[in-house]
Amino acid sequence: MKQSDVATHISQQFNEELEEIRHSVLSMGGLVEQQLADAVTALLSLNPELAELVIEKDTRINELELKIDEECTRILALRQPTASDLRLVIGVFRIITDLERMGDEAAKVARMGLDLSLMNASNKTYLEMENLTSHVIQMVNQSLDSFARMDAETALQTARIDKRVDREYEAITRQLITLMMEDPRNVRHFIDVIWAARAIERIGDHARNICEQVIYIVRGTDIRHSDIIYRDRS
Amino acid sequence: MKQSDVATHISQQFNEELEEIRHSVLSMGGLVEQQLADAVTALLSLNPELAELVIEKDTRINELELKIDEECTRILALRQPTASDLRLVIGVFRIITDLERMGDEAAKVARMGLDLSLMNASNKTYLEMENLTSHVIQMVNQSLDSFARMDAETALQTARIDKRVDREYEAITRQLITLMMEDPRNVRHFIDVIWAARAIERIGDHARNICEQVIYIVRGTDIRHSDIIYRDRS
Repeated sequence: MKQSDVATHISQQFNEELEEIRHSVLSMGGLVEQQLADAVTALLSLNPELAELVIEKDTRINELELKIDEECTRILALRQPTASDLRLVIGVFRIITDLERMGDEAAKVARMGLDLSLMNASNKTYLEMENLTSHVIQMVNQSLDSFARMDAETALQTARIDKRVDREYEAITRQLITLMMEDPRNVRHFIDVIWAARAIERIGDHARNICEQVIYIVRGTDIRHSDIIYRDRS
Repeated sequence: MKQSDVATHISQQFNEELEEIRHSVLSMGGLVEQQLADAVTALLSLNPELAELVIEKDTRINELELKIDEECTRILALRQPTASDLRLVIGVFRIITDLERMGDEAAKVARMGLDLSLMNASNKTYLEMENLTSHVIQMVNQSLDSFARMDAETALQTARIDKRVDREYEAITRQLITLMMEDPRNVRHFIDVIWAARAIERIGDHARNICEQVIYIVRGTDIRHSDIIYRDRS
């Protein structure tokens, strides 16, 4: 085998490893999406069995985080990537941390669903959560999509949805505080709904972080803590 | 200059760069500690000026995160570290994310302090927060100390405090829910106190994450998602 053949071979193997990591991130992302959808269903339909399933399945997401993490560390040590390959590995490190925390928040939503179903609560107040939830699910879906296609423009558009999610979350909180003042016997119930809304809003924050990492990987610019997301709105 | 001199020179320069990063992390940590202490003081003494100062100073922490982050990326690209040096760089990546989020949570505590001072609230209920707060401040202090001395044993002991912090936080939440039921006109006030307690409890979680990273850097074992912290309790 010639020297150049060896180099091509290593380079091809390296590309396959990077492709494998991207694939694993998307699998992990798919699992998180499913957990979020199930957690929300468990909450809105007060389904304790589904809630318990979501809580159990969270360990699978944690395992995937550790597996991808190890693979990234191995690549840094053995392949010593540079430029966009290095940004991909660093970006993936951060993205899987966010995905893992999204999984934790989904499990929290499920736990609130479980609590509420044990309280025999009505699901009246959850209806107001549907807008919030659908926007967060959209953010998660599009953030993963932007990662799959390495599409910085979609990532930027998706990150912008977070402002709307924050406003919706604040409106829900204000509404629930009013309900608590009117019906103090059910404070515990309303607090659980606030916690669930909070966890869903946090998932939106993590989706936004993923978008920021896609922009970093593709463009090499770190837009965390900048207001670029809210400028140049077209 | 001989070949071996060049190697020694580069190696020494590299060591200095790693030392510089550790130093920067500790500076950032010191700033976070100060922010936490000030935020808690602003909350407990209802001091709006101090609260505003904490909120303003959060950007300084964000800037430090980006600066250390860039330095770590540069080292990965140019020095291609392996073994314990690589673990240090990866660990620092994660630690500064946690420090930055601790800064965000401290700013939230300050915002609640500001809100409460504008409401002319009494500070009666905050007294119960003092235990929670002092344990979290202890966790933050010890986690940074374990990083400074690369002391895995202190890190493990510190991470274990998190369970107690969680229990104290839950007790505060239960107590505040009871107060809301008894005095529904002040629900908004009690909710702010719950948010503040929540943010302080989250800072404890991040301190625990830092401890896990110190253990990873020193021992090379990833104890996230494992129950090792709660085993072998001496």
